Amino acid sequence: MMLNENKIIEKLKTPFEHTNGIYGIGDDAAVIPINDKESLVISKDLLVEDNHFRVKYYTPLQLARKVVNVNLSDIAAMAAEPYLIMLGLAIPRDFDSKWLNEFLKDFTKECKINNLKLIGGDTTRSEEKLFISITVFGRASSKNLKFRNNAKVDDLICVAGNIGYAHIGLISLEQKIETISKFRKYSCSPKALIKEAIWLSKNMGISSMMDISDGLYIDLSKLCKASGVGAKIKLDQIEMKQDFLKACKTISLDVSECLLTGGEDYSLLFTVAPEKFNYTVLNFKNTFGYDLKTIGRIIQNNKIIIEKSGIEVPYSYNSFDHFGKKYDT
Amino acid sequence: MMLNENKIIEKLKTPFEHTNGIYGIGDDAAVIPINDKESLVISKDLLVEDNHFRVKYYTPLQLARKVVNVNLSDIAAMAAEPYLIMLGLAIPRDFDSKWLNEFLKDFTKECKINNLKLIGGDTTRSEEKLFISITVFGRASSKNLKFRNNAKVDDLICVAGNIGYAHIGLISLEQKIETISKFRKYSCSPKALIKEAIWLSKNMGISSMMDISDGLYIDLSKLCKASGVGAKIKLDQIEMKQDFLKACKTISLDVSECLLTGGEDYSLLFTVAPEKFNYTVLNFKNTFGYDLKTIGRIIQNNKIIIEKSGIEVPYSYNSFDHFGKKYDT
Repeated sequence: MMLNENKIIEKLKTPFEHTNGIYGIGDDAAVIPINDKESLVISKDLLVEDNHFRVKYYTPLQLARKVVNVNLSDIAAMAAEPYLIMLGLAIPRDFDSKWLNEFLKDFTKECKINNLKLIGGDTTRSEEKLFISITVFGRASSKNLKFRNNAKVDDLICVAGNIGYAHIGLISLEQKIETISKFRKYSCSPKALIKEAIWLSKNMGISSMMDISDGLYIDLSKLCKASGVGAKIKLDQIEMKQDFLKACKTISLDVSECLLTGGEDYSLLFTVAPEKFNYTVLNFKNTFGYDLKTIGRIIQNNKIIIEKSGIEVPYSYNSFDHFGKKYDT
Repeated sequence: MMLNENKIIEKLKTPFEHTNGIYGIGDDAAVIPINDKESLVISKDLLVEDNHFRVKYYTPLQLARKVVNVNLSDIAAMAAEPYLIMLGLAIPRDFDSKWLNEFLKDFTKECKINNLKLIGGDTTRSEEKLFISITVFGRASSKNLKFRNNAKVDDLICVAGNIGYAHIGLISLEQKIETISKFRKYSCSPKALIKEAIWLSKNMGISSMMDISDGLYIDLSKLCKASGVGAKIKLDQIEMKQDFLKACKTISLDVSECLLTGGEDYSLLFTVAPEKFNYTVLNFKNTFGYDLKTIGRIIQNNKIIIEKSGIEVPYSYNSFDHFGKKYDT
């Protein structure tokens, strides 16, 4: 039987313990304290052509931005500042060198814009597909770091950023549906919410945080598992814009399904203590000019319960697996 | 025209400067000072199936060892101690899961043996080939770090470890030549010379160091370029064992060519001040039980000169390119 990602992580995780303040496998990024006050935060991601992206959907600049921001989102999830980056490329022999040239130029630009110093990497030949392997480093005051494992019962669950938009954008690209093409940018050019994350990390009421890459349901499940709690998602409570609802209708996509399973928005999922909730929502809006989404509440029961119109709805989700193809080929 | 590795590195290098004590692109590994005394040393490598390795040549344990040691060799080259590691895997859908299981088990074992803490990574699907992407971290007292860019005119050039053995081993595997099969282990199971590197770093006479991955000629050229010097290689001076000479003869391989261009031995190439040379050679032998190889001397002229039987021999080498396939398919 093929190993899935979770099984591989379990196999790799077992022999290592968290020691000397190092947090390894299990959060958005690893944490290495470098002195009494500061930590390095490190994440490593592989992006494989036709699995994570199709070159034809992207300008070089868009792919450069996506690659940088997808990785920075893991740094944001820990509430760290961008610091260093390493780039590994495996390039097919017949790859368009003009495109690659532009990509490299845009990648270095994008690093600079995001205060990332490029410190190294590796390039090699690939037989068929373009492989992009990034290691990204953040830096943070250790006391401001946010982890997945500290959500408390009764905390409110919030999201900063979009939910389901990137999924609609991807469908628009894959199925060539022009009427919803304005959503494509959410798939092709996600933006890591670094500023929002840093702001949230200074709010003492934020108990846990992660980014949403695999979809709300899965990522909230991970956060709950790490914290030893459950969650009640109140679907009606999630504010949705008219154009999102219209787009779902256009492509006959169930709105709830899109909210719960649409991945790759790279929004921030976090929990906040009830007494800090109003303060957080109000000041977030004042600072960033857009509303936080309130998703539900942390509960004791180790389950994810979905509530719609005040009624619990049965929901089962087959755990998303990175090994499953995201695109049809 | 296809970009080669050097051109890509140049493109990525330009916009960044060495600031705040950070050494980025240009050495075996990047260096990040973490406090007044210590630095992190970081290297990232991509290993691609059928370009860097063929699965059929390796037991899972051998490949695990190779992957760890090839990466650790960059840490050794800087004279740092092994510290942390991240593993990225892109796995073909039909990949032998028993083999993969063993590999993961052996990889974690091999990390432990080498004092490497596995702190994270990423797994995803590949269409066809196995991709292994490693980020490895070392830790060192900043004053003991060794760079490529400090070789001085008149320094002696030495190598700790084998030269050309891995190349013979690879030929034995690729051409199925059983009579030289004892060299295969040098190709399949190289060992990073961490202990030797740390020992050398404490010797004040060692002016520069790097590992030999691409072959003596290329890697010495890189060291010389970084240091703004040249080198005279005295081929007759390099001590060679009978079985190496015999193996070259068996496969009609020119001994000089094998010494100058055979890659993947992961030996240490370093330069030592003349007044420390005898001390280094003697004490190295006493400590590690084998002889250092003396290769030649650093010269002012920015060239690599090859001398054989006291006569300068013309030599030109087409720069090795990682994009060139190492194996025939």
